[in-house]
Amino acid sequence: MSYGPQHISKQFDDELENVRGKVLEMGGLVEQQLNNALRSLIESETDLAELVIETEVQVNTYEVTIDQECTKILARRQPAASDLRLVMAITKTITDLERVGDEAEKVARMAIELTEKHGPKAYYIGINAMGNLVSNMLHDALDAFARMDSKQAVAVAGKEPESDDQYSAILRQLVTYMMEDARNISGTLDAMWTARALERIGDHARNICENIIYLVEGKDVRHFSIEQMEDILAGR
Amino acid sequence: MSYGPQHISKQFDDELENVRGKVLEMGGLVEQQLNNALRSLIESETDLAELVIETEVQVNTYEVTIDQECTKILARRQPAASDLRLVMAITKTITDLERVGDEAEKVARMAIELTEKHGPKAYYIGINAMGNLVSNMLHDALDAFARMDSKQAVAVAGKEPESDDQYSAILRQLVTYMMEDARNISGTLDAMWTARALERIGDHARNICENIIYLVEGKDVRHFSIEQMEDILAGR
Repeated sequence: MSYGPQHISKQFDDELENVRGKVLEMGGLVEQQLNNALRSLIESETDLAELVIETEVQVNTYEVTIDQECTKILARRQPAASDLRLVMAITKTITDLERVGDEAEKVARMAIELTEKHGPKAYYIGINAMGNLVSNMLHDALDAFARMDSKQAVAVAGKEPESDDQYSAILRQLVTYMMEDARNISGTLDAMWTARALERIGDHARNICENIIYLVEGKDVRHFSIEQMEDILAGR
Repeated sequence: MSYGPQHISKQFDDELENVRGKVLEMGGLVEQQLNNALRSLIESETDLAELVIETEVQVNTYEVTIDQECTKILARRQPAASDLRLVMAITKTITDLERVGDEAEKVARMAIELTEKHGPKAYYIGINAMGNLVSNMLHDALDAFARMDSKQAVAVAGKEPESDDQYSAILRQLVTYMMEDARNISGTLDAMWTARALERIGDHARNICENIIYLVEGKDVRHFSIEQMEDILAGR
């Protein structure tokens, strides 16, 4: 099954293209929020963290606006087939993007906490690596959405176990800091919440990829293994 | 604005009623998952925890099935007005229910971990109270969905700050256990992850309530304060 416009109304095409464009704008904003939150954490830039917190409301506005436009399209255009899947995939994707925005805000808040506590920089090595990984996952998921590329979507979803492994390794390392010195506990917990937020972002990037596969291949692959997803793309 | 069938096709009525019924079944299952997970935690019943983990797949199946039926209704019936809002509210609600199921599974896994570690029962006092609160929130949210009761939905959403306060209190208490004795750290962290899962469930219960308000009142109240929601119900 391939994605492509099957309708003849130019105006309908424009409406779909417009809402798809807004999803990409929202995705770009959320990606920027995540990257700013990570930079504020690693570089102890609390001003940047404050900016992330202030900008969160813009992410929410995108979610509500795009959802409204999707409902309007459903009511007025009564889309079918791939158009309907596009609208449904968008309503799900923006929920995931909004939650990535929430998690980025949590990372920004932790950046402020951790900067105030002057926690050991050693906390951040694993978190920095994991932050880069999930940031790339999000970027590539959005890129796959822009290009309707289900193959790339499967590849990105396949990186989630790596992010889970990094998360487990960070937790183990942080627990040893806690055990070494009770004075590390508070800062270490903040670092743990940060890692947890990044792990959630990895999950949302995977969800977005599942939406893309649904959109392009017409098959709901939530709760599927990566191998099962690959089978679908290969038509097995 | 009031919710009510505005279409004349008996079969369409039946389809909507059928999918609504499935959401309530799914909700009942998820509620049971949460309550079993909490009981397994408090009573150290690892068999019950195993049951929760095994049953998670049923929750996922409900999500995928209901989503398929919603897409079918959109494609075949081209619903408008309150029917369209019902379908859209359902697709969002089942995402929240599925995630509540995920969090219940996490609680069950923590119950197994904590039982094996023979952690102090003192961990559970706050968690038990918070578990009861969010379980009631979920129950009342599902009840509000069944009765299309936006007033009750606002009341349930209004309990989220209470669950956040309980969560903060639990975390503070658990940090003191950690500081007292490094041997408590591992068990305490499990208790923290459990509290975090419960906090997420409170968030999802609130999301479900927001979907109900959208459905009944025709207004998207995500990111609204409780006062703003009350204004909408009062027609202000």
